[in-house]
Amino acid sequence: MKETTLEVRGMSCGHCVNAIEGSVGELPGVLQVKVDLQKAQVSVSYDEATSSPTAIKENIEEQGYGVA
Amino acid sequence: MKETTLEVRGMSCGHCVNAIEGSVGELPGVLQVKVDLQKAQVSVSYDEATSSPTAIKENIEEQGYGVA
Repeated sequence: MKETTLEVRGMSCGHCVNAIEGSVGELPGVLQVKVDLQKAQVSVSYDEATSSPTAIKENIEEQGYGVA
Repeated sequence: MKETTLEVRGMSCGHCVNAIEGSVGELPGVLQVKVDLQKAQVSVSYDEATSSPTAIKENIEEQGYGVA
């Protein structure tokens, strides 16, 4: 298991938190996802055999957010 | 049919727009609802026999937004 924390721009409310946690949480290989709205961060635990920071980043960007 | 425009605080993104338009749109007597995120306004057309600005305001407040 690995962990990554991404800086995400554009998350503004609880709906955004739920959307990102729900969508990233359903990705293959993702074990846990936690959004910190105040810090503008998304922390993800994932199985490195089946997921990657790139796959997670792409999912978040597809939802219209910016990932640093 | 009557129309009312409410000033609503706390709407921050497209999820908020969808949540309010969906929820208010399902209220009895509500014919049409349109959120303007930039103006922080919710405009509603309703049947005055079966709905009221008070009922609409309460629904929006229950979702956690402030209504002026």
